Amino acid sequence: MRIDGRAKDEIREVKIEKDYIKHPEGSVLINVGDTKVICSATIDDRVPPFMRGKGKGWINAEYAMLPRATNQRNIRESSKGKVSGRTMEIQRLIGRALRAVVDLEALGERTVWLDCDVIQADGGTRTAAITGAFVAMALALGRAVKEEKLTTYPIRDYLAATSVGVDVEHGTILDLNYEEDSNIEVDMNIVMTSKGQFVELQGTGEQATFSKEQFDEMLELASKGISDLVAVQKEALSEFSHLLESEGEEK
Amino acid sequence: MRIDGRAKDEIREVKIEKDYIKHPEGSVLINVGDTKVICSATIDDRVPPFMRGKGKGWINAEYAMLPRATNQRNIRESSKGKVSGRTMEIQRLIGRALRAVVDLEALGERTVWLDCDVIQADGGTRTAAITGAFVAMALALGRAVKEEKLTTYPIRDYLAATSVGVDVEHGTILDLNYEEDSNIEVDMNIVMTSKGQFVELQGTGEQATFSKEQFDEMLELASKGISDLVAVQKEALSEFSHLLESEGEEK
Amino acid sequence: MRIDGRAKDEIREVKIEKDYIKHPEGSVLINVGDTKVICSATIDDRVPPFMRGKGKGWINAEYAMLPRATNQRNIRESSKGKVSGRTMEIQRLIGRALRAVVDLEALGERTVWLDCDVIQADGGTRTAAITGAFVAMALALGRAVKEEKLTTYPIRDYLAATSVGVDVEHGTILDLNYEEDSNIEVDMNIVMTSKGQFVELQGTGEQATFSKEQFDEMLELASKGISDLVAVQKEALSEFSHLLESEGEEK
Amino acid sequence: MRIDGRAKDEIREVKIEKDYIKHPEGSVLINVGDTKVICSATIDDRVPPFMRGKGKGWINAEYAMLPRATNQRNIRESSKGKVSGRTMEIQRLIGRALRAVVDLEALGERTVWLDCDVIQADGGTRTAAITGAFVAMALALGRAVKEEKLTTYPIRDYLAATSVGVDVEHGTILDLNYEEDSNIEVDMNIVMTSKGQFVELQGTGEQATFSKEQFDEMLELASKGISDLVAVQKEALSEFSHLLESEGEEK
Amino acid sequence: MRIDGRAKDEIREVKIEKDYIKHPEGSVLINVGDTKVICSATIDDRVPPFMRGKGKGWINAEYAMLPRATNQRNIRESSKGKVSGRTMEIQRLIGRALRAVVDLEALGERTVWLDCDVIQADGGTRTAAITGAFVAMALALGRAVKEEKLTTYPIRDYLAATSVGVDVEHGTILDLNYEEDSNIEVDMNIVMTSKGQFVELQGTGEQATFSKEQFDEMLELASKGISDLVAVQKEALSEFSHLLESEGEEK
Amino acid sequence: MRIDGRAKDEIREVKIEKDYIKHPEGSVLINVGDTKVICSATIDDRVPPFMRGKGKGWINAEYAMLPRATNQRNIRESSKGKVSGRTMEIQRLIGRALRAVVDLEALGERTVWLDCDVIQADGGTRTAAITGAFVAMALALGRAVKEEKLTTYPIRDYLAATSVGVDVEHGTILDLNYEEDSNIEVDMNIVMTSKGQFVELQGTGEQATFSKEQFDEMLELASKGISDLVAVQKEALSEFSHLLESEGEEK
Repeated sequence: MRIDGRAKDEIREVKIEKDYIKHPEGSVLINVGDTKVICSATIDDRVPPFMRGKGKGWINAEYAMLPRATNQRNIRESSKGKVSGRTMEIQRLIGRALRAVVDLEALGERTVWLDCDVIQADGGTRTAAITGAFVAMALALGRAVKEEKLTTYPIRDYLAATSVGVDVEHGTILDLNYEEDSNIEVDMNIVMTSKGQFVELQGTGEQATFSKEQFDEMLELASKGISDLVAVQKEALSEFSHLLESEGEEK
Repeated sequence: MRIDGRAKDEIREVKIEKDYIKHPEGSVLINVGDTKVICSATIDDRVPPFMRGKGKGWINAEYAMLPRATNQRNIRESSKGKVSGRTMEIQRLIGRALRAVVDLEALGERTVWLDCDVIQADGGTRTAAITGAFVAMALALGRAVKEEKLTTYPIRDYLAATSVGVDVEHGTILDLNYEEDSNIEVDMNIVMTSKGQFVELQGTGEQATFSKEQFDEMLELASKGISDLVAVQKEALSEFSHLLESEGEEK
Repeated sequence: MRIDGRAKDEIREVKIEKDYIKHPEGSVLINVGDTKVICSATIDDRVPPFMRGKGKGWINAEYAMLPRATNQRNIRESSKGKVSGRTMEIQRLIGRALRAVVDLEALGERTVWLDCDVIQADGGTRTAAITGAFVAMALALGRAVKEEKLTTYPIRDYLAATSVGVDVEHGTILDLNYEEDSNIEVDMNIVMTSKGQFVELQGTGEQATFSKEQFDEMLELASKGISDLVAVQKEALSEFSHLLESEGEEK
Repeated sequence: MRIDGRAKDEIREVKIEKDYIKHPEGSVLINVGDTKVICSATIDDRVPPFMRGKGKGWINAEYAMLPRATNQRNIRESSKGKVSGRTMEIQRLIGRALRAVVDLEALGERTVWLDCDVIQADGGTRTAAITGAFVAMALALGRAVKEEKLTTYPIRDYLAATSVGVDVEHGTILDLNYEEDSNIEVDMNIVMTSKGQFVELQGTGEQATFSKEQFDEMLELASKGISDLVAVQKEALSEFSHLLESEGEEK
Repeated sequence: MRIDGRAKDEIREVKIEKDYIKHPEGSVLINVGDTKVICSATIDDRVPPFMRGKGKGWINAEYAMLPRATNQRNIRESSKGKVSGRTMEIQRLIGRALRAVVDLEALGERTVWLDCDVIQADGGTRTAAITGAFVAMALALGRAVKEEKLTTYPIRDYLAATSVGVDVEHGTILDLNYEEDSNIEVDMNIVMTSKGQFVELQGTGEQATFSKEQFDEMLELASKGISDLVAVQKEALSEFSHLLESEGEEK
Repeated sequence: MRIDGRAKDEIREVKIEKDYIKHPEGSVLINVGDTKVICSATIDDRVPPFMRGKGKGWINAEYAMLPRATNQRNIRESSKGKVSGRTMEIQRLIGRALRAVVDLEALGERTVWLDCDVIQADGGTRTAAITGAFVAMALALGRAVKEEKLTTYPIRDYLAATSVGVDVEHGTILDLNYEEDSNIEVDMNIVMTSKGQFVELQGTGEQATFSKEQFDEMLELASKGISDLVAVQKEALSEFSHLLESEGEEK
C-alpha cells in the first residue's frame, strides 16, 4: 500500500490553471499533487549566438525553486552567486525535452524561453515542470499562430514527463511524491510523446543497481502515467487542439 | 482622473490569502491590484554572526521577481551571478522596516527570514512585499507562541507600506500602479505603524525636486492608505488579534 | 550638550580642496569634520546602453572606502568579489541626487562619472560624498563650457546633503558624527537644493519609530545645515558662479 | 559500414595505463580509441558536511578538459569563473555511478576524490572517464587494504560505461566516436556492472524520439560493450582480483 | 636629457607625510614625484590559516588604484568582481618584499596588513608602495613596542624599492615616470635594504632582451636610488631610529 | 652533495615528446625530471581588443595544474571560481617571455595561445612550461610557414627558462626540484635566449636577502642550464632549424 493510498500505477491529481500570470505570452500553474510549478513562456525574436543565421529557432528553459518551496529553507541561488549542478541539469533537461517535439525551422529565428518556478515542492518537480512548460509553450505558440506571427504551428506532438521507482517494499510505483522518492532505490524520469515514443529516459540506482526486468516494468508504468498526463494537457489546450492534432497526424 | 478610475486617495483592491504555500511557518499571497507577491516566513534557531551571543534575534528579508513578473522578461539574478543594487536596496528596506516593530529581545536568538517573491508586478512591489511580509511574520510568530516555542509575542504593532507620488497632471496620488509610477515626478515610499508613527520614509525626485507643502500633502495621503492596509491585515490576522492588540496597548 | 561641543543646529567644519588630484576633469577633497572624501568627476563621451540614442546624458556615481578609513579594517570589496548592499545603495543615491539638478539634455550624450572614495570616515560619508561630488561635477562641467565642449551649462542649482537624527538624550541634532550616529534612534539623510527644494529624503527608525512633529523638526535643522554647506560650495565654485547663478535664476 | 571500419557491436581499442602520474593514491591513463583521460583517485580522511557523523564515506568526482583536448580551443572554466552545466552534469554522473558499487559503510568516514581530466577528446569522454575512474579508485582502495588502512575492500563489483546510438543511416551502433556522435539521432549512455545490472541509463533524442524496440536493441549492444570493457579492467586490476572477485561472489 | 630635466641617476622628489589618516596603527602619504600612495598598516592579532600554530607572524599587502588615479578612468575591481593579474602580482610582491626584513618570530602570531592605495599615478606605483608601506609598518610596530604590545622590534633593516630602465635613446635611467616607462625597452624593479642587499629583482624585456653589461649598469643606478630613498625613510622614522639602528647592527 | 646526486651545475634529465596530443597546431609533453607539462599552441586568427587594427599579433599563455599534479590534492580553480594570484603571475610571465623572441608584425593579426597544463609537478613547473611552450609555438608557426599561412617565420631566437637557488648548505645550485625549492633561501627564475641575452629575471629572497656576488654566481649557472635546455629544443625542432637558424643570424 502506498503512503497516500494510491495504486501502484496511479498518478497524483493533476490540475493545470491557464494564464496564471498576466504578462507572459503563455503561462500555467501546474499542480501534480502538492507539487506546484508556475511555467511561463516568452517568445523572443532573437536566437542565442550559436544559432544565428541558421534560419532556425531555439527552446531554452530555466528552473528555480522559491526558498520555502521545500520543508527546509534553501539559500537562493542568486545569493550564492551561482546556479547549482542540480538546477543546471534540470534546465538542460527541460529545454532538450521540449525541443524534441518542436520543428525549429517552422519556429524561425526565435527563442522560446520557458521559466519554471517551483512554488511548492513535493517530489517530481522536474517532470511537473516539463509537463507544465509544454502547455505554456503550446499556448504561446498557438496565440502566435492566431495573431499570424507564425504561419505554421511548430509543435509536432504532445509531450509529458513522469517518474517511476523501484524499491524492496513497494515494488515498482508510478509518480513518486517526496517521501516515496526519499526512500526509493531506483529512480527513473521519463519523457514521452502522446504517440508513445521516448524522448528522454534517465534511470539511476543511487547506491543500488537494477535488472532488465525491473526496467521493462518501469517503462510500462511510465507509459500509463504519460497517457493520463496528456489527457489533462489536451483539456487545457482544447482551443488549439486543431493545430496540434493535425500536426500530429501528418508526422 | 486616474488611469484606472480611482480617486486620488484610494488604494487598489488588496487581498491577503493566508497559508498560500504549505511548508513555511507562515505564508501569504498578497494582491495589491495586479501586483502579486508570495511572502513566506521561516523561523531559524540561529542568528547571523554579528548578532551571536547578544540574547537577541534578527529579521532578514530577501526579495526577488520571477523573470516574467514584468512585461519584458528579466534575466534571473542567479544566472547573472549577482544580485542587483535595486534588489539589495529593497531587501535591506524590508528587513529594517519589520525590525522596527519587533522586540528582538523577546524573539530570542532566532532569525525570522522573510522571502518575498513577486510573481506578478504592476507597481509598488516593495511596499506590497512589506505589507505581506508583516502578515507572514505575524502568523509564524503567533503559531510559535501557540506552540509555546515563544513565551511573549514579540510584535509590537501592525506595520504596512504604501507609495505616494506627485506630478503636474495628477497632483498628489496614493498607491501608484506601474503606469502611474513610470510617469511620476516625485515618488515616495512610506512605512508606518497602525498608530501613525513613521518607520521609514524615502522620497525621491528623479529629475525633479519637491517642496515642503507637496511633502506634507504626500504624508497625509500615505497615512490614509496605511489605515486601509492595516484594516486588511487585521482581518487576515484575526486569530492572533489578542496578542497584537494587547501588545499594542502596553507600549 | 553634544559630544564635540557643537550646538544642536551646528554642522562640523567643512573644507573643500579643489583639484586635489591632477588627472580628473574635476576633483575635490572634502572634509566634513574628520570625514574625508576624494570626489572626482570624469566626462565620458558615451552613455550607458539604456540611454543610447535619446540625445540625453547620464550621471553615474561610485562610492568606496579605503580599508582603514574606519577604526576596524574592512575587507576590500574587490577581494570579496562583490559590492555590498550598503555600497550599492549609496552609489545609487549619489547618482540620483545629482541627476535632479542636471539638465540631461543640455549635457548631451555624455556620462559624468563621480568617484567618491572615502579615505577617512567619521560619520556622514554619503552626505559628504554628495556635497563634494556636486562640486567636482560643477568644476568639470564648468571647464567643459570654458573649453567650448558644451554650449550650455547643464547644472540648474547648487545641491548639498546632510544628516539629522533624534534620540532621547539629545533631541534632534544636525550633522551626526560617527559616535552620535552609532547611538541615534532615528536617522535621516536629506538632499536639498540652494532654493530649499527637496531632492531626496530618507528617514529610518532602526528599532524605533518617529512622529510627524519630530519629522518637521528634523527638516528644519536639515534646511539650516544645507544653507551652510551651500555657502562653502559657492566659495569653491566662485570661478563658475556666473554660470550657476544665471542658470538658477532662469529656472 | 562505420566510418572507422568497426562492426556495429565493436568498441574502439581500449588501453589502461596504470600509475600514469606518481602522486595520487591511484591513477590511470585510459585510451578509448583517440579519447584519452587521466583519472586519479585521492583518499581524503574527511567527508563533506552533509555526510559527517554518519559513519559512512563518500565518492566525489570532478571532470575537466584541457582547452585543446578538442579540435577548437575551449575557454578554460577557471578563466570563465564558473563550471558549465555540461561539466556539472558529467561530474555528478561519475560520482553517482561509482557510488553504486561501493559499500560506503565499509569505506568509513573518508572521501574518494576522482579527478578525470580529458587530455584528448574523440567522443565518449564521460563514459571513458567512468571506466577509467573505476580502475583508479579500485587501485587506491586496493592499496589502502594492503597497507591496512581499510579492513574490508569496499568495492562490490566491476563497473564500466559506454555509449550507443541510433540513426537512419547506420542503425544501432556501439561506442560512438566524435564524428558518429555529431550525426546521431538518439544517444544513450549506459553504466553497468560486470554482472549485467544497470546503474545508470540516460537516453536522449535530440530533436528526435525513439521506440521501445530501438531501445531494447541499444541495451543489447551496450551489454556487449560493457563486457569487453570489464575484461580490460580486470587485466589492469589483476593484482587486486582476489579482493574484487570474492566481494563479487558474496553479494 | 630626460623629459623632466633629471640626471640619469636622479630620483624624483620624495616626500613622506606621516599619520596621513587617523585610524590606522601607522599610515603615510608617500609622494614620489607625482605618484601619490596612501599606505596604512593594521596590526591584526590573528594569522592566516596556513600560519596558525607556528608561533610566527605574517605580512600581507593589498594594492589598489582609485579609478581616476590615472589619465583614463579605470573600472573599479570591485565592480568587475575580480582583482586583475597585475594587482595580484603587485600585492604579492609588496608582502614578500616586506617579509624579507621582518623577523616573523619576533612578531608573534600577528598579521600586519599593508593597504597601499594609489590616489595619483605617474609611474613607479609599486615601488612607491613598497617604500611607503615600509614606513607605515615601521611606525605601527614602533608604537606597538612603545605600548609594550611587542617586546622586540621585529624589523631588521630599512627597505626601499625603485625602478631602472634602458632604452636606445636615453641609455640607463633611474626612477622612471609614466612617460619614460611607456617608452622603455627594458624595465627593472629592485627592492634593496639599507645595507645594499637585494631582496627582490624583476627585470623584463618587453619585446626586447638585455645583456649582462646593461644589467650591471642598472644595478648600480638602482643602488644609488635606494640610498636616496632610505635617507628620506630615516627622517620619517627618526622617532624609532634607536630601534632600527640597533637591530641593524646586530644582524 | 645534492639530494638526487646531481652536480651543482647539472640540470635534470629533459625530454620533449612532440605532437603529444593530436588536435593542437603544435603540442609537446615536456619532462624536466619528474615535472611533466603538456604545452599546446593554438593559432587564432583574431587578436585581443587592445591589439586590434595595429597590424600586429599577440602571444597569450594559460597555465594550470591537475589537482593531483602535486602530493596534496589542490582544489580546481574552476571550482573555486577564480584563478589564483600565483597562476596569474605565471601565465603573465610565460606570455611576456615568449613575446620577447617573436616578431609580432611578422605574425600579423593573429594570437598564439599557449596552454601549459602541469600533469605532474616536482619543482620548476613555470620554467618547464616556458621551455616546452616555446617548442609548441615553434612547431605551430613552422607548420604555418610550411602551409604558406605565414610568409616569414616570426621567431627570432630559441628561448628557454630555468631556476637557480642559493642556500647555506648547498651554495648556489641549478634547476631546483621540489624538495630543494622548499628549503632554498634565495630563488631565481631566468629566461634567456640561445645567444645569452636575458629576457626575464626574477630573483626573490623569501625571508632572506642576497649579495651582488651571489647574484653573479646564479647568473653563471643559469646560463649553463639554458644552453643545455636549448640543445634539447634544437633536437625537437630539427625539422624547422633552417627557419630558426637563418632568422637567428639576421638579427
